[in-house]
Amino acid sequence: MKLAAQYIDIGSRAPTVLLNTVDAAELGVHPLDRIQIEYDSRTAIGIVEFTDELVEPGTLGVTRRLGYVTGDVDVIPAPQPNAVHYIKKKLDDIELDKHELHRIVLDIKQDRLSDVELGAYVTGTYTNGLSLEETMYLAECMAEVGDAIQWDDAVVADKHSIGGVAGNRVTPIIVPIVAAAGIKIPKTSSRAVTSPAGTADTMEVLCDVEFSLDEIKEIVTETNGCLVWGGSVNLSPVDDKIIRAETPLSIDPPGQIIASVLSKKKSAGSTHIVIDVPYGEGAKVESLAAARELAEDFKRVGDHLGMHIECTITRGSQPIGRGIGPVLEARDVLDTLAGNGPEELRLKSLRLADILLESCGCGGEAAEILDSGRALATFRDILAAQGGDPDVTVDDLVPGRHELPVAADRAGVVTHVDNRLVSDIARRAGAPRDKAAGMVLHCRVGDEIVPGDPLFTVHAESAEKLTDAERLVDKSEAVRVRSRDEALVERV
Amino acid sequence: MKLAAQYIDIGSRAPTVLLNTVDAAELGVHPLDRIQIEYDSRTAIGIVEFTDELVEPGTLGVTRRLGYVTGDVDVIPAPQPNAVHYIKKKLDDIELDKHELHRIVLDIKQDRLSDVELGAYVTGTYTNGLSLEETMYLAECMAEVGDAIQWDDAVVADKHSIGGVAGNRVTPIIVPIVAAAGIKIPKTSSRAVTSPAGTADTMEVLCDVEFSLDEIKEIVTETNGCLVWGGSVNLSPVDDKIIRAETPLSIDPPGQIIASVLSKKKSAGSTHIVIDVPYGEGAKVESLAAARELAEDFKRVGDHLGMHIECTITRGSQPIGRGIGPVLEARDVLDTLAGNGPEELRLKSLRLADILLESCGCGGEAAEILDSGRALATFRDILAAQGGDPDVTVDDLVPGRHELPVAADRAGVVTHVDNRLVSDIARRAGAPRDKAAGMVLHCRVGDEIVPGDPLFTVHAESAEKLTDAERLVDKSEAVRVRSRDEALVERV
Repeated sequence: MKLAAQYIDIGSRAPTVLLNTVDAAELGVHPLDRIQIEYDSRTAIGIVEFTDELVEPGTLGVTRRLGYVTGDVDVIPAPQPNAVHYIKKKLDDIELDKHELHRIVLDIKQDRLSDVELGAYVTGTYTNGLSLEETMYLAECMAEVGDAIQWDDAVVADKHSIGGVAGNRVTPIIVPIVAAAGIKIPKTSSRAVTSPAGTADTMEVLCDVEFSLDEIKEIVTETNGCLVWGGSVNLSPVDDKIIRAETPLSIDPPGQIIASVLSKKKSAGSTHIVIDVPYGEGAKVESLAAARELAEDFKRVGDHLGMHIECTITRGSQPIGRGIGPVLEARDVLDTLAGNGPEELRLKSLRLADILLESCGCGGEAAEILDSGRALATFRDILAAQGGDPDVTVDDLVPGRHELPVAADRAGVVTHVDNRLVSDIARRAGAPRDKAAGMVLHCRVGDEIVPGDPLFTVHAESAEKLTDAERLVDKSEAVRVRSRDEALVERV
Repeated sequence: MKLAAQYIDIGSRAPTVLLNTVDAAELGVHPLDRIQIEYDSRTAIGIVEFTDELVEPGTLGVTRRLGYVTGDVDVIPAPQPNAVHYIKKKLDDIELDKHELHRIVLDIKQDRLSDVELGAYVTGTYTNGLSLEETMYLAECMAEVGDAIQWDDAVVADKHSIGGVAGNRVTPIIVPIVAAAGIKIPKTSSRAVTSPAGTADTMEVLCDVEFSLDEIKEIVTETNGCLVWGGSVNLSPVDDKIIRAETPLSIDPPGQIIASVLSKKKSAGSTHIVIDVPYGEGAKVESLAAARELAEDFKRVGDHLGMHIECTITRGSQPIGRGIGPVLEARDVLDTLAGNGPEELRLKSLRLADILLESCGCGGEAAEILDSGRALATFRDILAAQGGDPDVTVDDLVPGRHELPVAADRAGVVTHVDNRLVSDIARRAGAPRDKAAGMVLHCRVGDEIVPGDPLFTVHAESAEKLTDAERLVDKSEAVRVRSRDEALVERV
């Protein structure tokens, strides 16, 4: 069907097109059906919505995602994408080959899959799993369809944590240590999805985090490191689309995690990577056995992609660091780089940095680089290169002024600090959107407590959000204090 | 956030709302996020799209599905629906209880699930299956959320085929036989989704098929039967939404089939039902063992819902009847009711009708009712009650005038007639949208063939669609002719 394209200002995550009901009936399509649009000898896919008023018969309303489609177009109902056959195979628990995974990755990249089909893909890889071979192919395909950075260096370092632990802000400490040791480390990080702060949110307190690949290359050439948001570059475009489907379902199949992480590292040009797998109650990986299995698979897939992977299995059953939320975590980072800060944050950062440096064949010692102030100096160089204030101090970073101090109502020891509840409270208080919101922990597991001892303080930028957070504090137990000999946790 | 609702004419299958980008940022929502809309002390769910131009800040653009939302509204980001937790449980292969299934059914009914979440639900029930208990609860919940018909009669008959066999148009023959025997049979049928004709498409050649529940009750009170489209009533509103998610993936989990079918029958007030399970190469169920298992489960779930179920396992490896497509199947139906027609269509209809009559405790014999002309007379009464021409004859039903006769190019016997290819060719020729399009089969499995014998004729309403169909005919083998002793089917 010949139609004339007309721009309609709707900003949709989907490539939505508006058809007049008359044309839609003639074409034989229903709302949410896909149509193939031929324009300028090129092809795009649109998702149909109907209208009687917004566009006339003979006109194709194109929304923002398809704003580049103009002039006279030819429209037919889109054939079902090939990926759907392969997704069906996965649902039937049949292993997919490289060609089939490549087709799925391409169809996801080109937005050819409907949300129902995308939901089936992430569900199928979750319930039926991905074999090691599938994971290798998937990582390869996901890297191939993204942009890439080339480096002249033989060794380019990187690090990643699979997450789930609150306040685990080791990255802004490790990156300047490694960079100060003379090794390039072009680190891209995520923003928070379900947590109170991602590394990108924390860094944004101190400097810009959105840069193009060219700008990233410039920053790293100048300072050996960067701490930028991965979402502003196109290293693994398919990953963002998959994560969008996984997030509402809270599913994160191990094979998909590995393919997502390593495809991005491959595209970033990294050669030596340390992957941190925190495990324990409330972390993403709950058992040591599962953590080991994931670590082994990371190493195998890394080998396949020609990258050297070191994995650290770390204790993740309680938050690392004291601050939770962008500003509060940035304070911990600056403190630690200055030789102070929470001891557990310092130790974990040094341990991971040493393993990464050793793997890169670098003689330097992380503790020496940190204690000498070289890491802090490099961090300030990176801040300057990323448009921040290199002279920022902890005092410039002011926690949310609405405060709720929470104290112990009994004596005992701290037996548990709940990652998930800590995150939920910090989010209720406004993090990560309100940068100064969140909480500061005043205790760790094992601390002796007497009634009235401070456990944590919630910070918010508005009184309303503090009240919101307070409601959750009152009905839950983010920090568990028990008598030293009490074995009972819950009665069910 | 307080907003003023403004109608925007977009007809979406989803409850889409348009937010100005400024308001969306303030609210903290992204495209495709769900918002909860409070209006008139009631609550609706909307799916967000952005715009800079179509609505001003302070305004909520509501589209057709939410056209009833007017005036001042209060909007917050919608909390995640409870169903998502239970879907996640199903993905982890944990059995769901009645309360959890009820929540899923309600959230689907109220459009609270995103397509990704709906895709995960159908995928999870496919890969991990539904237990018999889950199927029972699901059927119960699906029936509860729909409208229902009440009858004063102790016995109300119904029939259903799980489908996948081309030209299997036994329903318009069975319904008038049962109705003529004095038993009410309020039959609702589907339109074609992936086939060249559903029973509703075929009946639409002869009369109207869209009626309200009150009208259906009137038609059945007058004639004992009806043959209407189920989509125009609200007997199992959740079913349509689930089918929409299953169709693109071609998945149809057995438990979901049973719950879908029986929830509709329960709502229609039926007490005695015959379920036809065709099996064989190319049918929906391919093995006898699978057919038996499905049949047993149908009977158990029927018991639970207080309905008497008889199942027939029938041969489904080749089409029943000669015509494929709405007009061509309607011709077979009229012929058979008049005592002629394809023998296999007559025999299958009689066999199913006898089983249903016997189960209803009715003394009548199907063959006697058909041969005496009483079934045809009742069929004509139903046509009249449904606004059709009761005096219609086969000659009024003209096949598409563009014809492609296909003849054998070798001698042998017909070893296979492929349901799926037959359907695909008929659809290419224009069925079901072009009512007179489709094909007529001139042979069945076992027929002796000499070169030049007619195998089938394709009919189309336009030359273009005939050419489309011809391309598929040329590159495939819908009717397989082999020498009598040839064992080889394919070499892989």
